[in-house]
Amino acid sequence: MKIRLGMVGGGSGAFIGEVHRIAARLDNRYELVAGAFSSDPQRCKESGEQLGIDPSRCYDDFATMAKKEGRKKGGIEAVAIVTPNHLHHAPAKAFLEAGIHVICDKPLTSDLEDAKELQSLVEQSGQLFAVTYNYSGYPMVRQAREMIANGELGAIRVVQVEYPQDWLSTDLEKSGQKQAAWRTDPARAGAGGSLGDIGTHAFHLTEFVTQLKVKSILADLNSFVSGRKLDDNAQVLMHFDNGARGALWASQVAVGHENGLRLRVYGEKASLEWFQEQPNRLHYSVLGEATRTITRGSDSAGENANAATRIPGGHPEGFLEAFANLYNDFADQIEAAREGKQITPSLVPGVGAGVQGVQFVETAVASAKNGGVWRSLE
Amino acid sequence: MKIRLGMVGGGSGAFIGEVHRIAARLDNRYELVAGAFSSDPQRCKESGEQLGIDPSRCYDDFATMAKKEGRKKGGIEAVAIVTPNHLHHAPAKAFLEAGIHVICDKPLTSDLEDAKELQSLVEQSGQLFAVTYNYSGYPMVRQAREMIANGELGAIRVVQVEYPQDWLSTDLEKSGQKQAAWRTDPARAGAGGSLGDIGTHAFHLTEFVTQLKVKSILADLNSFVSGRKLDDNAQVLMHFDNGARGALWASQVAVGHENGLRLRVYGEKASLEWFQEQPNRLHYSVLGEATRTITRGSDSAGENANAATRIPGGHPEGFLEAFANLYNDFADQIEAAREGKQITPSLVPGVGAGVQGVQFVETAVASAKNGGVWRSLE
Amino acid sequence: MKIRLGMVGGGSGAFIGEVHRIAARLDNRYELVAGAFSSDPQRCKESGEQLGIDPSRCYDDFATMAKKEGRKKGGIEAVAIVTPNHLHHAPAKAFLEAGIHVICDKPLTSDLEDAKELQSLVEQSGQLFAVTYNYSGYPMVRQAREMIANGELGAIRVVQVEYPQDWLSTDLEKSGQKQAAWRTDPARAGAGGSLGDIGTHAFHLTEFVTQLKVKSILADLNSFVSGRKLDDNAQVLMHFDNGARGALWASQVAVGHENGLRLRVYGEKASLEWFQEQPNRLHYSVLGEATRTITRGSDSAGENANAATRIPGGHPEGFLEAFANLYNDFADQIEAAREGKQITPSLVPGVGAGVQGVQFVETAVASAKNGGVWRSLE
Amino acid sequence: MKIRLGMVGGGSGAFIGEVHRIAARLDNRYELVAGAFSSDPQRCKESGEQLGIDPSRCYDDFATMAKKEGRKKGGIEAVAIVTPNHLHHAPAKAFLEAGIHVICDKPLTSDLEDAKELQSLVEQSGQLFAVTYNYSGYPMVRQAREMIANGELGAIRVVQVEYPQDWLSTDLEKSGQKQAAWRTDPARAGAGGSLGDIGTHAFHLTEFVTQLKVKSILADLNSFVSGRKLDDNAQVLMHFDNGARGALWASQVAVGHENGLRLRVYGEKASLEWFQEQPNRLHYSVLGEATRTITRGSDSAGENANAATRIPGGHPEGFLEAFANLYNDFADQIEAAREGKQITPSLVPGVGAGVQGVQFVETAVASAKNGGVWRSLE
Repeated sequence: MKIRLGMVGGGSGAFIGEVHRIAARLDNRYELVAGAFSSDPQRCKESGEQLGIDPSRCYDDFATMAKKEGRKKGGIEAVAIVTPNHLHHAPAKAFLEAGIHVICDKPLTSDLEDAKELQSLVEQSGQLFAVTYNYSGYPMVRQAREMIANGELGAIRVVQVEYPQDWLSTDLEKSGQKQAAWRTDPARAGAGGSLGDIGTHAFHLTEFVTQLKVKSILADLNSFVSGRKLDDNAQVLMHFDNGARGALWASQVAVGHENGLRLRVYGEKASLEWFQEQPNRLHYSVLGEATRTITRGSDSAGENANAATRIPGGHPEGFLEAFANLYNDFADQIEAAREGKQITPSLVPGVGAGVQGVQFVETAVASAKNGGVWRSLE
Repeated sequence: MKIRLGMVGGGSGAFIGEVHRIAARLDNRYELVAGAFSSDPQRCKESGEQLGIDPSRCYDDFATMAKKEGRKKGGIEAVAIVTPNHLHHAPAKAFLEAGIHVICDKPLTSDLEDAKELQSLVEQSGQLFAVTYNYSGYPMVRQAREMIANGELGAIRVVQVEYPQDWLSTDLEKSGQKQAAWRTDPARAGAGGSLGDIGTHAFHLTEFVTQLKVKSILADLNSFVSGRKLDDNAQVLMHFDNGARGALWASQVAVGHENGLRLRVYGEKASLEWFQEQPNRLHYSVLGEATRTITRGSDSAGENANAATRIPGGHPEGFLEAFANLYNDFADQIEAAREGKQITPSLVPGVGAGVQGVQFVETAVASAKNGGVWRSLE
Repeated sequence: MKIRLGMVGGGSGAFIGEVHRIAARLDNRYELVAGAFSSDPQRCKESGEQLGIDPSRCYDDFATMAKKEGRKKGGIEAVAIVTPNHLHHAPAKAFLEAGIHVICDKPLTSDLEDAKELQSLVEQSGQLFAVTYNYSGYPMVRQAREMIANGELGAIRVVQVEYPQDWLSTDLEKSGQKQAAWRTDPARAGAGGSLGDIGTHAFHLTEFVTQLKVKSILADLNSFVSGRKLDDNAQVLMHFDNGARGALWASQVAVGHENGLRLRVYGEKASLEWFQEQPNRLHYSVLGEATRTITRGSDSAGENANAATRIPGGHPEGFLEAFANLYNDFADQIEAAREGKQITPSLVPGVGAGVQGVQFVETAVASAKNGGVWRSLE
Repeated sequence: MKIRLGMVGGGSGAFIGEVHRIAARLDNRYELVAGAFSSDPQRCKESGEQLGIDPSRCYDDFATMAKKEGRKKGGIEAVAIVTPNHLHHAPAKAFLEAGIHVICDKPLTSDLEDAKELQSLVEQSGQLFAVTYNYSGYPMVRQAREMIANGELGAIRVVQVEYPQDWLSTDLEKSGQKQAAWRTDPARAGAGGSLGDIGTHAFHLTEFVTQLKVKSILADLNSFVSGRKLDDNAQVLMHFDNGARGALWASQVAVGHENGLRLRVYGEKASLEWFQEQPNRLHYSVLGEATRTITRGSDSAGENANAATRIPGGHPEGFLEAFANLYNDFADQIEAAREGKQITPSLVPGVGAGVQGVQFVETAVASAKNGGVWRSLE
């Protein structure tokens, strides 16, 4: 029986809402049955119609939805929250309190206190919670994680992670483009611009793959586009708990880059490089040996990568499939919960990862405001 | 209202059946409601259960399915045929005769006469017919086609197309691996081995993108693996109707290649290169100018590419999304047919492309048997 | 003591003459002391002055030069012949007869009989002879050869070699451009256009690396540029003596390619790919393993590659260094000859390779003229 | 008439000495006629013999050499100093005082005061001085500089430069390997390890290409290999005088990298990327347009690139050719000086660039020692 899913946000024209819907649909384990797609009732209704949702389950606001669906027989079991950052906390809280599992887009909240409150709520409620740091769903990202966990790199020394884009190279937000408008608005995005939107992805990827903790950071932030209030370029130095060093660069004014998330991890014995725009490949260099290109679906791929793979090597999987892997893994958790089984640890980022992401943003902003000083992340 | 879809073949464990199902599901326009998934009744039933199909609509054989679904109120509107090559013709015929649209995997049939019979049937029946030359669903393939149609390359001079794989480098078919077994068996695959399995894709891609006709071919075929009856390596020279020349290489013993379909088209003024394993890029070289890399979802992409695009540039789409584009386009046709509208010409390969593919195989085999001589494709 | 070198051709403005001079100079083993740089006495003299040659050793014609230098005490020990194709045979003959070693640009001659005559002369005279199939000088080409000789690929099955360029995409020869003019003129280039100029390189590379013999070929030639008398695009199918199959594509109208010589060799166990525009890398794929990128100067490079390497890995060597490797190896031969030592077999292509190249051109032309038929190369 | 050149250091077995010699030889404008190749008289003599130097001009020490050659008729006009860092200052001073032009390897000195003293001496003496920041000799590096100077990128916003290597991933210096030994020894290398050896190259490249000044830097240095006294990994943040921001990463423990110098410059309108291991290419992305790959020798290359190019596009030039470009340009200066002509500004890095490099090292070390704080470079 498919998992009954609701959605908050994601009305027609939204980008990430449609991504979540395709991801939920891809492996045929969810059924979207309810939604509060827009704060505009008319737009909400139209979105519901287009999606074939029963009109009685199209809600004008998330609070009503949480209440009604929480009580209803056959109500939704999980909700996807795909609103702008400042509108994550309230619905997440409402659905948790209504006994509904939550899939929340990143960053978890626009404020650290809110994030921590959600973390407490999750712990108290026993509900499941996922934060869609979707890049962790790529098979070759999981391959990298598995190889590092297996000691194939030896002790990690250096991590270079970067996430350059160019879509905010001009003052697009002034043109009324919605995606740009809320992401550059502190009231809706929170304290971080590129930091929150993409820096958090890079940061999560770093900790997810290395399974190291970043202990302290130093940030240099800038807004290159005139009149922009939030950072559009961020340089962050990182110290890891094992002594490793790293640098993170996030930019939305890096002309020529579409979605250039790239992670490089260097250990004593070997290194790995992964590039999101060619996600089916993982470059693996052992000291003194020729660099190898490990591919998804090949004999060189390990257990975690294979578990997240649908089609043979050479038939590229992409962004949507990686996103769907999170939905798929979360479905495993929900089904286990349904049956009262123990929830086994999963590769899906949880509320803890969400909190760390918000903390990363706030700490980086504080470091930069103080002229670029080292700040602990704990 | 979603399109009611049935499936012939694709029982659990099959590769291409699952690909068709994901493709049908991705854009939420089809609902799989019936199937004859396997000639083994037990396996058929289990597959149906896993897929959530009403048991009364899981059929032991395609003939019964065609008859019952054709008469039933709310019966399927379209069927996907995903069996081995020699089992395309009979079900395709049965469903066409039952008034049901057909989506057939490639090659259309294992025999040219059968292919031509289907072509006549399609013309008589007025039913819609798609052959899943799925590589034509990639946005950047359509971009290439559009650019050539717009004259951006000038007169085409040379086409180099290749499709190397390595999965049949050993006698895998002797191990009982199903995919290998039927593809290397003349009784099930037809006269072509690599020619039929992948050469037809390369051939279709060539004509699809250039919109030229290949007038004659000369083939050199070989079976490198001992005991193999069908070609596992094919070199084909091509003469085009406009005077262009080309070479097609298909191999399933090319160690190091997973699914290396690559098309290069050279015109008087410019050239294009597309590689399936990095499908979101199209290399475009104008004589005397620096080579450009056009990406899916970017400002440089044209109308056809954009129409086949779901997510922004830099967020890679892959094989499944391309496959889904054919399903999506075919859904447009079916909906038009439902409403009695004129079916506008579409980018979905039809029965004609299917016939040409089978003709390509038979002509290449005849050329090679005669020691490598030029043979007309007409 | 440096080797005393002369040059025929290569007057100021020539491309390949300057390449030979830099190659000779790079490792400091040759000294250019005499020349017949041009048939135009004034241009010859000026070239000599620029090169710091004693005016008394600047000759108006090669015949005089051969005679005088052959007799002179301290006369040249070797001569580099860098004239257009039709002017290779006569000077080569003259210098051999004068007891002077010869370095001749490729193709050896514009006519097979001439080539064979030179071969006989070399055998009779005991002089050393090199043909500058310079791509065989690249370290990673030699690495490929060594790996194949060591059996790392198993039995070779398929060879794909291509050499696309685009500089003759238009009728450049009509503009008076010298390089284009003689290369497209049957009287000066011989029977092959792209075949002779670059196809022979691709052919030599194939045999050099695989150490197989091409037994028979089938060619499809075309001249795309209006009014051009020689082929500017050549498709050649190849059968090898061990049963391997291959295709060779040479084109000078392939827009977007500068000097795109690429060799791919597929064996039972593994494959290799080398691309001239990134010559310090060799891609090595073992069946079932991740593809490796072997680099010049790295721990993965073998004896032959290392012997042809000057600087560490990651510090790219290029075309001139590869060319210089032939000069360097030939210097070893000359020094051995000086001292009356046995000449050990060398990687420098000799007169035999030269004859085979001319035979390749003539056989391909004959195959094409007969409509594309298989022709023996023996 | 060739320029008479001497050399200090570079005895047999040295890496960089041989590079300088090949570079000097490549374009036939220098003649090596004297040397103090080693502090070991025997080794010096043997090196001289191998190089064909008149024994009377093989000196046991640079001081004698400077004195004698400075006075001698037909004495050397220029000297190349290719010793370890701590042995640059004294010979440079001696030759300047002897009226001989100096080509000095980088970094200029191991100490800032020494560097400034040399700068004063150059100004007083009127002698010519070059520091071999050789990466500035690559044609496509000069192309990048020219494009930025022409405003093709608009105002520069971000610079990402990195120089990863892996040859010091282990404690190679303990094995007695000479190159490793002096580079990790503060007494011979100065205050910087990877900073001085490769960081200075990255820093110079940044300023050379952008023609911006780095105003202040913040450094995080580490020595990963146990017992190593100097940094083997350096993260440096940069603020430029025009408000641009940047990051520089130098590492000699980055497994998988041979000589991975990479520069990326992002402007308001466009960006450029250059990678030393594929030096004939320059990636150029204009906002909203498809990325272009500009190649050396192509129609897209500009004046500066073409002036530094010997052979056509697609025929790769490499590290030695780039190095030779500095020698070639410096020869222009020397010849102008010979003739008493005005020395026109040149692309060869001079003593000023040398001083800046040393200042970069000292400032970075000071920043890191203080816990990672911003320090002015002025």
